[in-house]
Amino acid sequence: MFERTIWWEGNTVVVLDQTRLPHEATTATWRTVDDVAHGIRSMQVRGAPLIGIAAAHGVALAVAADPRSLDAACELLGATRPTAVNLAWALDRCRAEVGPLSAAERAIAARALATQLATEDAESSRAIGEAGLPLLAEVHERTGRTVNVMTHCNAGRLATIELGTATAPVYLAHDRGIPVHVWVSETRPRNQGSLTAWELADHGVPHTFVVDNAAGHLLGSGEVDLVVTGADRVAANGDAANKIGTYLKAVAAADRGVPFHIAAPASTFDPACPDGASIPIEERSADEVLTVNAGPIAPPDTAARNWAFDVTPARLITSWITDYGVLGVGELGRVLSRRT
Amino acid sequence: MFERTIWWEGNTVVVLDQTRLPHEATTATWRTVDDVAHGIRSMQVRGAPLIGIAAAHGVALAVAADPRSLDAACELLGATRPTAVNLAWALDRCRAEVGPLSAAERAIAARALATQLATEDAESSRAIGEAGLPLLAEVHERTGRTVNVMTHCNAGRLATIELGTATAPVYLAHDRGIPVHVWVSETRPRNQGSLTAWELADHGVPHTFVVDNAAGHLLGSGEVDLVVTGADRVAANGDAANKIGTYLKAVAAADRGVPFHIAAPASTFDPACPDGASIPIEERSADEVLTVNAGPIAPPDTAARNWAFDVTPARLITSWITDYGVLGVGELGRVLSRRT
Repeated sequence: MFERTIWWEGNTVVVLDQTRLPHEATTATWRTVDDVAHGIRSMQVRGAPLIGIAAAHGVALAVAADPRSLDAACELLGATRPTAVNLAWALDRCRAEVGPLSAAERAIAARALATQLATEDAESSRAIGEAGLPLLAEVHERTGRTVNVMTHCNAGRLATIELGTATAPVYLAHDRGIPVHVWVSETRPRNQGSLTAWELADHGVPHTFVVDNAAGHLLGSGEVDLVVTGADRVAANGDAANKIGTYLKAVAAADRGVPFHIAAPASTFDPACPDGASIPIEERSADEVLTVNAGPIAPPDTAARNWAFDVTPARLITSWITDYGVLGVGELGRVLSRRT
Repeated sequence: MFERTIWWEGNTVVVLDQTRLPHEATTATWRTVDDVAHGIRSMQVRGAPLIGIAAAHGVALAVAADPRSLDAACELLGATRPTAVNLAWALDRCRAEVGPLSAAERAIAARALATQLATEDAESSRAIGEAGLPLLAEVHERTGRTVNVMTHCNAGRLATIELGTATAPVYLAHDRGIPVHVWVSETRPRNQGSLTAWELADHGVPHTFVVDNAAGHLLGSGEVDLVVTGADRVAANGDAANKIGTYLKAVAAADRGVPFHIAAPASTFDPACPDGASIPIEERSADEVLTVNAGPIAPPDTAARNWAFDVTPARLITSWITDYGVLGVGELGRVLSRRT
């Protein structure tokens, strides 16, 4: 088992290569900022918080090689994935904290900042876990049975440094003896449900794998107490962009009276973005949709579209579980103003 | 190209083997009722109407081999798949029309009935197409542009004898010069979207393949004019069981103000079933979920559940496109009483 998802080895950055999971827990080594850009784009690392931290490590590699390359590195890394605002947030911090320094100071400062962002993220995850834990504990106290949580994609420790966002309350509940079970959705087309299953299995948390299509049946069956997902960007009005398919779970949860929560750190909230319609939605290659394990899934002339995210309107979100507490829609100013 | 999906060759029944599509258009040959039961269970043929017709062919093979085996054959075939009511309906007709005959008459009568059910199904599909066509034509007349239809799973000619159910209005529109484009959903875990893409490509109908998760984004983007799916059983109150994931599309369509229609022949309506809660939902092997092209998608200890269908409540259904016209919820008696 790996302690963290990203770390330094000498002058290189090493990450758990998530494109190989759940089959092999192998690492990828990044030596240059180009390696980092490729690693983010190809999803060796993914998950909004980890993307931001990985980018900061990329900046550190860039300025170690050439202190004058700060702006070029930020531009390169900023263009890798458009939806997760944590990426822009991390690069803004690099520019603000490293930019004013002399060439001689930059390499050490950039590396220290990358490490600091990782530490802050681990603290954020823990705060999210402590904030969300009572939501699970309440279900267990009220019903006396296992708490059933549905999630989507991977908003787990693999999307962060440790504990995750959506999974943070789950891990804390499990560790403190509250029985919890997670419904894991496959998350086509990239199957990040595999990552969630892998890390839950690794931590010993009971879970069951289902196809994305099963969410509606489950939400109507009484077998889900609450839905918790992560987010890649939360607009000022609370609209949340997250992995494609999240909105379907939110709208079905609302229809069936099941609470739906977004778990995300302050760095995911974007005060500059008024609402979901202003969030850019990444469209990825059609090949991700049309190729299933190296085989075509449709006839040669069939076209495909592949949006990576959708937007869940704030009206479908019960609460936002943040590192500044569990917030209702009227309380989001508390986290929007804390974002540094 | 094959004219039909099931036909006689001498004393054997031949079907287009849908487990090999879209990669190869090959056939499977059924010599015994056991072959038919295996063929239905393993989804060499699928789709509620075709399952019923295939079962009638199985009865014909059984009574040709042994005229006294009618009841045993109906029992064997009736147990293959629980949700599609067309299966029970077809077997009821076999019992009613073949049962009273002498042993000497049964083989010819059973074969004639199987062929007749196929002919009736083709007529039903055509009637559904004519009934549903004005819904598409109206969009084109109003907007002057291509009509965008979203469907789920395969309710096409491959699920029937010809034209399909949900696709029947699409094919008629295309053939009559109304520009139409279909959003095809992958339909995990069995990927029947591949079948829909294959038959639309074969017929020259423009279409785009997306993962199931994309439905919510699409429905909110203005790129879908109406959703049309098939059904495996419609209860007396209009609740409709269809491929797992259908409810998610219906609830998102309702949330976004996009009409959602069920297209199905009278044989899919079950007057004996008061509502969706009374419809048995087939659960299939976890392996269908956990294995993607022969590789595991989750760690070895991860469990999975695999419901094949979900129920869409009547309140989310705009209309039922049937071989007795386009019906509102108050008019379903018209088709429930015509079911023979």
